[in-house]
Amino acid sequence: MNSFGTNFRISLFGESHGEAVGVVMDGIAPGIPLSEADFLPDLDRRRSGARGTTPRKESDTPHLLSGVFNGYTTGAPVAVLFYNENTRSGDYRNLVTHPRPSHADWVAVQKFKGFNDYRGGGHFSGRLTLALVTAGVVAKKMLGAVKIESRILEIGGCADREKFPEVVERALRSCDSVGGVIECTAEGVPVGLGEPFFDSVESVMSHLLFSIPAVKGVEFGNGFAAARLRGSENNDPIVSADGRTATNNSGGINGGITNGNPIVVRVAVKPTSSIATEQQTLNTETGRVEPLVIKGRHDACIALRAPVVVEAAVAIALAQFV
Amino acid sequence: MNSFGTNFRISLFGESHGEAVGVVMDGIAPGIPLSEADFLPDLDRRRSGARGTTPRKESDTPHLLSGVFNGYTTGAPVAVLFYNENTRSGDYRNLVTHPRPSHADWVAVQKFKGFNDYRGGGHFSGRLTLALVTAGVVAKKMLGAVKIESRILEIGGCADREKFPEVVERALRSCDSVGGVIECTAEGVPVGLGEPFFDSVESVMSHLLFSIPAVKGVEFGNGFAAARLRGSENNDPIVSADGRTATNNSGGINGGITNGNPIVVRVAVKPTSSIATEQQTLNTETGRVEPLVIKGRHDACIALRAPVVVEAAVAIALAQFV
Amino acid sequence: MNSFGTNFRISLFGESHGEAVGVVMDGIAPGIPLSEADFLPDLDRRRSGARGTTPRKESDTPHLLSGVFNGYTTGAPVAVLFYNENTRSGDYRNLVTHPRPSHADWVAVQKFKGFNDYRGGGHFSGRLTLALVTAGVVAKKMLGAVKIESRILEIGGCADREKFPEVVERALRSCDSVGGVIECTAEGVPVGLGEPFFDSVESVMSHLLFSIPAVKGVEFGNGFAAARLRGSENNDPIVSADGRTATNNSGGINGGITNGNPIVVRVAVKPTSSIATEQQTLNTETGRVEPLVIKGRHDACIALRAPVVVEAAVAIALAQFV
Amino acid sequence: MNSFGTNFRISLFGESHGEAVGVVMDGIAPGIPLSEADFLPDLDRRRSGARGTTPRKESDTPHLLSGVFNGYTTGAPVAVLFYNENTRSGDYRNLVTHPRPSHADWVAVQKFKGFNDYRGGGHFSGRLTLALVTAGVVAKKMLGAVKIESRILEIGGCADREKFPEVVERALRSCDSVGGVIECTAEGVPVGLGEPFFDSVESVMSHLLFSIPAVKGVEFGNGFAAARLRGSENNDPIVSADGRTATNNSGGINGGITNGNPIVVRVAVKPTSSIATEQQTLNTETGRVEPLVIKGRHDACIALRAPVVVEAAVAIALAQFV
Repeated sequence: MNSFGTNFRISLFGESHGEAVGVVMDGIAPGIPLSEADFLPDLDRRRSGARGTTPRKESDTPHLLSGVFNGYTTGAPVAVLFYNENTRSGDYRNLVTHPRPSHADWVAVQKFKGFNDYRGGGHFSGRLTLALVTAGVVAKKMLGAVKIESRILEIGGCADREKFPEVVERALRSCDSVGGVIECTAEGVPVGLGEPFFDSVESVMSHLLFSIPAVKGVEFGNGFAAARLRGSENNDPIVSADGRTATNNSGGINGGITNGNPIVVRVAVKPTSSIATEQQTLNTETGRVEPLVIKGRHDACIALRAPVVVEAAVAIALAQFV
Repeated sequence: MNSFGTNFRISLFGESHGEAVGVVMDGIAPGIPLSEADFLPDLDRRRSGARGTTPRKESDTPHLLSGVFNGYTTGAPVAVLFYNENTRSGDYRNLVTHPRPSHADWVAVQKFKGFNDYRGGGHFSGRLTLALVTAGVVAKKMLGAVKIESRILEIGGCADREKFPEVVERALRSCDSVGGVIECTAEGVPVGLGEPFFDSVESVMSHLLFSIPAVKGVEFGNGFAAARLRGSENNDPIVSADGRTATNNSGGINGGITNGNPIVVRVAVKPTSSIATEQQTLNTETGRVEPLVIKGRHDACIALRAPVVVEAAVAIALAQFV
Repeated sequence: MNSFGTNFRISLFGESHGEAVGVVMDGIAPGIPLSEADFLPDLDRRRSGARGTTPRKESDTPHLLSGVFNGYTTGAPVAVLFYNENTRSGDYRNLVTHPRPSHADWVAVQKFKGFNDYRGGGHFSGRLTLALVTAGVVAKKMLGAVKIESRILEIGGCADREKFPEVVERALRSCDSVGGVIECTAEGVPVGLGEPFFDSVESVMSHLLFSIPAVKGVEFGNGFAAARLRGSENNDPIVSADGRTATNNSGGINGGITNGNPIVVRVAVKPTSSIATEQQTLNTETGRVEPLVIKGRHDACIALRAPVVVEAAVAIALAQFV
Repeated sequence: MNSFGTNFRISLFGESHGEAVGVVMDGIAPGIPLSEADFLPDLDRRRSGARGTTPRKESDTPHLLSGVFNGYTTGAPVAVLFYNENTRSGDYRNLVTHPRPSHADWVAVQKFKGFNDYRGGGHFSGRLTLALVTAGVVAKKMLGAVKIESRILEIGGCADREKFPEVVERALRSCDSVGGVIECTAEGVPVGLGEPFFDSVESVMSHLLFSIPAVKGVEFGNGFAAARLRGSENNDPIVSADGRTATNNSGGINGGITNGNPIVVRVAVKPTSSIATEQQTLNTETGRVEPLVIKGRHDACIALRAPVVVEAAVAIALAQFV
């Protein structure tokens, strides 16, 4: 469903072209300084703007509705609301009858019996990550000294940061899209977070990361590469009494529990499914396969906006355990 | 914690060298035929025996304690118990002071303040997957016609099935271990399973898959490879009214919801951390780094026993949604 | 915490004198007609106005922010927001140092370390029941033909409806408050709702009913009177194939499961703790006990406004099971 | 379902005449001394034996299967098992076609489509409270210095303890049953337990108390009597800096949060529905109403065995918050 968490609980709501998107957060300790301004840096990192991101511009102004008094959290739920402003719903009408390949259009109609708000992807829109980033800001504050940072490792298979703009530009010019790989690290994580058996840090973190639209892979430490190593290569010798290891192939997690070394997680973001080049899809009215050219405003490389969303997911996951 | 699920809830308990391992399952519809014999095939697939698996032999006899009457589930919780038989706890005493690299030994002591049962990994042991496989058998029955199958794609980086025994043998001979990649598919899955935003099928499934000891990566459909493709390559054209797609790069899931095509998920299993070759680790009593040679009985390639465990996790995840 | 439910999940937020009060509801089937107007009748029943209710007047205008498209629920979360309008926060400043007897003032400061929003009771205010009533409207729609109705059985120990105004008036004149007993019935409830062992209908319903501020007792069917009867007097003979019973001493629930007869539940509402007559309380600054005269606007008989809130709790509880 | 709790989670299983009854408990801190002997005193208090309790005798020997090592809890789940010994299933066969009035017989068949284990009430049996008492023992240990005590206030409407045996004897002689009222107090409870809005102490405690078979009413402090008082009579003046109040009409809870004064809760237990006197019920095969005389072994006054069960529920509820 649209809520997550035990100790730090979040509930999302909203649609891409509805009135608003928002989030209610519960389980926040009292006494944490919090204001609307605190959300702006991360919201800004998520916002479009760079070449290859959607031309839809939103001010993304957070409205802090509850849970803060005299500048500090009170311990009661914090609700933050964002009104949608720049919506052009006319763009999306034909996607009901011509579901976009690899998008949620078709399954949404099936699951919600045609009552889903299809405008701009509705509740399936990447715009919902606005709520995730908002919750991430609070989670980061709850985590205190833990330092969470994301970076783009690859765009369209290219691992040279300098060439990312060029890769995106080429995709744009061919009316296509590209994916990417995001890496996120969390340093200063206390030892002992996570629970056997089901609430391993990897379990809870991947649960949140796979909630992010377009994420199709998650790996920790050496991840898939570990499957190709020997134990003698992959094991991390413990070299100090505080648990520091000589290598960090485990990505800071053993037996599902943090070991005090940096958490390292990588996320595969698929190329945006909404592309301007012609594709084949089903016409659900006629039952025939027909060409589709998607209009509207889309990100050619959603991975460009993903790092701060990944950080938010990582922070929200860790906030369950502190 | 040690319970999982909303509609199909499971609670695990037990330790590797304690009295028993077991699982309580709730949310099972009444009227499903179930007997102790039904568990045997999957339990047998999980059991050691092949070269490269632990020489510890257990009969793994399931004791069905509740929830079944006259051969059918009653709707009340089903509890299944396995007594531990073949335990040699003397083997493990020194691992408290010399925590194995990349194993849970050290974090367990930290988290549980030294009260954890360290014998054979205690509650962190792979033996707990016995309970997972047991729950998987019930989940498969709940899923009816859905066909779930796993296979080993790679062992130690080798993708040639014929050569798997050789790869394992080489690792054994050098007192080392190897990892592997498991792929699992689920066919015949109904359209529309999964929930936006947080309970996407990928989220719930990865949550369970990362609960399996030694799993360090999970990907769906094209997974990490999708991050290196363009949208025009990765998108799956819908070609029939029941949602069938020409390709299945999405692994049967769009927007977190099943689209009726086979679910495809791959899991990276790291090489067993318990290896017989000498390693460096901390002596927690002296605070010095010392050589460690691990004794006891271990799997050199845990991936060999993992396919049925992965199937169980996939089945338990899907059983949340039906 | 501030969320409840598995199938029908609700998350509340807001404070009495903050910017807004609201609720996010999840698990609503798509295709239910819903508009802001649908909330008005129940909101109106909750609103103050009668003699003995607070002179604070609020328009209580619901803002439907999400989850509805073209007049029908979409299956995505429904968020409803109420802005606070008529707030006079100056009234409450001294209650931090002089906590009202039997109110949440003192425990709130202790629990939230002094960061709680104390204005008008903050998050502990009866104003939060606005969110409950809102969720109740949706729950009633989810329940279809089930007919849920509340009535006041007693005010201040008086069971004669005609004399209720007189009882309240007397309390008002002596600057005091009175409690009451509310009875709620649900007719047309399907057989078989509720779950053994912990999610009995009584368990889930009482959980919600005791969330309502001022509720101190809950009983089903004969309730406490059953403890004074013999089995032969209290048992309900089953007299028809659809489970109808000759009497309904069980209040429609056996073994925690609905039996198809009307659910009958009674709720004890204590007299409002905020009274204008002089009381003794602790001065938390001096540590001395001092006289307190509470100012501000309060209900002399909160039970007058409670029936619709009780209905909401009953409806939300039943909506978990359908 | 059959699990409860967030911080201290319990999962019950078993049937009255099946192989076993048991409970899995999770969320127990490591380092608590625990052995099978610790369960015996409370198990003994629950056991039948007194005049008016069932002649079915069970040794109720607890088998501690996991989560304890060297005499201390490890932090892993604690599973405790009780094998059923003294079962006479022949007694119950006709209750399928002749459901006992006010018992779960009829609803169980409806809900579980006839697959329920009807022997001795199956999963609906009071025997399941064995698991609750077991969990209560652990919860009490988790609560440290909190002192939880129950007493019978009334039997069959009689409040004179001396006359309880006589009241029961009279019921027995007329082949009838009697109910009772249990009061439970918890002293030494820390200030600030409980959560607004939905997880008030009253909410969570009543949730558990109403899970106990035969409980039909729950009230805190003055409870229903408070509804008949004025605020000036019912309010508790705060008289010391640690929150002590001059009276305790609130039963130790304000705004759903503990205030440090003793928690006082009363529970109405209905008369056992299984009585030996002739009653009318439906013959589900013929659809006709017929006389029923219940055989088998039953408690004439289940309230006699309830105090320790009520204590367990209170302890398990409080253990959620510490």
